[in-house]
Amino acid sequence: MVVVVFRSRIREGADFAAMEVAGARMFELATRMPGFISYKDFSAEDGEYVSLVEFTDLDTLKAWREHPEHLAVQERARLEFMSEYHIQVCTPVRDYRFPV
Amino acid sequence: MVVVVFRSRIREGADFAAMEVAGARMFELATRMPGFISYKDFSAEDGEYVSLVEFTDLDTLKAWREHPEHLAVQERARLEFMSEYHIQVCTPVRDYRFPV
Repeated sequence: MVVVVFRSRIREGADFAAMEVAGARMFELATRMPGFISYKDFSAEDGEYVSLVEFTDLDTLKAWREHPEHLAVQERARLEFMSEYHIQVCTPVRDYRFPV
Repeated sequence: MVVVVFRSRIREGADFAAMEVAGARMFELATRMPGFISYKDFSAEDGEYVSLVEFTDLDTLKAWREHPEHLAVQERARLEFMSEYHIQVCTPVRDYRFPV
């Protein structure tokens, strides 16, 4: 299992409607990729966002990272949508749930 | 480096004021623990929360997990504050930033 912690901030003046269209399309594509487990967006009070993405393993995540439509949106994100981002590709070493 | 992805939902009828007092105290304590790097809260539109916590390594995180006041709040969280949680203790295998 791989957990991607994708923290970002939106660029001033970014086109929110275009960003939502691109985001919805990426969600649609990602959920159909082999190895996809989950995706969810969260936001903080200071305007920072975090998306949590889970894939079964690094190879299926790599295939998603290199999907041609996804590569195009990554480029657009850097040029149009985001002022900054920080991506941590992580492997869980421990896992706790409540209720167990 | 260790990244803790702490996803949770608040119990119906939970005392938000008490939860905020406990949360503020935990933040104050955590930031003073050896190995502490960062802490931040995010929320999703459906009411799920995620806290992202970074420590330098698993040993300093363990010391924080076992701090007596923190243990007491963990117990209170299960009894009073949270309906569910999911904690993933993760180690980053890759890290990307923009701007680089």
